[in-house]
Amino acid sequence: MRPYVFVNLAMSADGKISTRERRQVKISGADDFKRVDEIKAGSDGIMVGIGTVMADDPSLTVKSPELKAARRARGEDEHPLRVVVDSMARTSPDADILCKGAGQRVVAVSAAAPAGRVEALREKAEVVVVGEKGVDLTLLMHELATRGVKRLMVEGGGTLIWGLFKAGLVDELITYIGSTVIGGVDAPTPADGEGFVREDEFPRLELAGVERVDDGVLLRWVVKKEE
Amino acid sequence: MRPYVFVNLAMSADGKISTRERRQVKISGADDFKRVDEIKAGSDGIMVGIGTVMADDPSLTVKSPELKAARRARGEDEHPLRVVVDSMARTSPDADILCKGAGQRVVAVSAAAPAGRVEALREKAEVVVVGEKGVDLTLLMHELATRGVKRLMVEGGGTLIWGLFKAGLVDELITYIGSTVIGGVDAPTPADGEGFVREDEFPRLELAGVERVDDGVLLRWVVKKEE
Repeated sequence: MRPYVFVNLAMSADGKISTRERRQVKISGADDFKRVDEIKAGSDGIMVGIGTVMADDPSLTVKSPELKAARRARGEDEHPLRVVVDSMARTSPDADILCKGAGQRVVAVSAAAPAGRVEALREKAEVVVVGEKGVDLTLLMHELATRGVKRLMVEGGGTLIWGLFKAGLVDELITYIGSTVIGGVDAPTPADGEGFVREDEFPRLELAGVERVDDGVLLRWVVKKEE
Repeated sequence: MRPYVFVNLAMSADGKISTRERRQVKISGADDFKRVDEIKAGSDGIMVGIGTVMADDPSLTVKSPELKAARRARGEDEHPLRVVVDSMARTSPDADILCKGAGQRVVAVSAAAPAGRVEALREKAEVVVVGEKGVDLTLLMHELATRGVKRLMVEGGGTLIWGLFKAGLVDELITYIGSTVIGGVDAPTPADGEGFVREDEFPRLELAGVERVDDGVLLRWVVKKEE
């Protein structure tokens, strides 16, 4: 049992999600911002990796007052459950994701995370220990499902997304491709990590949507399931 | 004076042009193969970097008998002028790009290239020395223009493409995005190298075409010129 997992990201025309300095850059525009806010508001949970928390300090809150009101009217928290994948419990207790906006938080750590940091995080979030040295993403998905997460949005970064693809946990990949070039052998990409080597390992996608948005294009890919 | 420069490449949905082992993988299908052959046949020159020559040993020849015949009928060589950007003259004299198919070759080296390797290459290609330690791409473009190259196609890899963008030498970027995920922090991308850091350095593109081809999508971006 696991949520429906969709990855949503913006990349440059040359496949970078930020600069080599991991500084967040504006890749999309106002229409895409609105779209992302809407799918966020329609999700039960939203997940990022610790690298993204440390680089961008995102709050991952829903921005639109109307969308927040609609969530409250449905009896939901104003913001989806926020989830950080953080093997070593490096999330700062002052991180925006733990402090900004009403709603629940889960920090997923491994058994190797230092107890002191774990205890500090427990004051701000529910901490779940899944996996020995790294976070076991499959177990984490099960934990999220038992907490009522049916639709989970993943915002990044590239290491987490790679881990999810490797574990076969991605149902949909939505990429906004912006009208710029960033370049850089060290710049983060939509799927970093170790990478696949053999073609029979590559996840196969089906192109479910192509749409011009702002100055770029939005692609929606559905991951084909092994039969 | 320089040619009209267009970059053509295929990448996975997560922005990789091959695996971390730099092994060439099939990203597009038969329709895209045909399209690439056609734009190659319509070019005066086709350029790759030494990394691509060493990884893939491409011949960069036109494949279709009809397209080759049409080139001959126009009084052209069967294949466009093939150009290798190779600062240190590392191209093997036995490389397919120097041996397969009729037509001219240019290997662009720097003044730092070992004389022995340069001499060996002169038996197979015209060697032009442009730049002190690395190939000066702007000078090279001038040299190609004086040899009658009006339309130049660039096939890769990421380091050369980055250098061309950095030097402001790209007019058009054509990316085929295939229905798979490759992943890998070390996998080559469409623009590697150092990468841009400040947003005012980023080349700005205009989306000139979006088309479904095979199982993926073909994007055509035109580089906006500084006024």
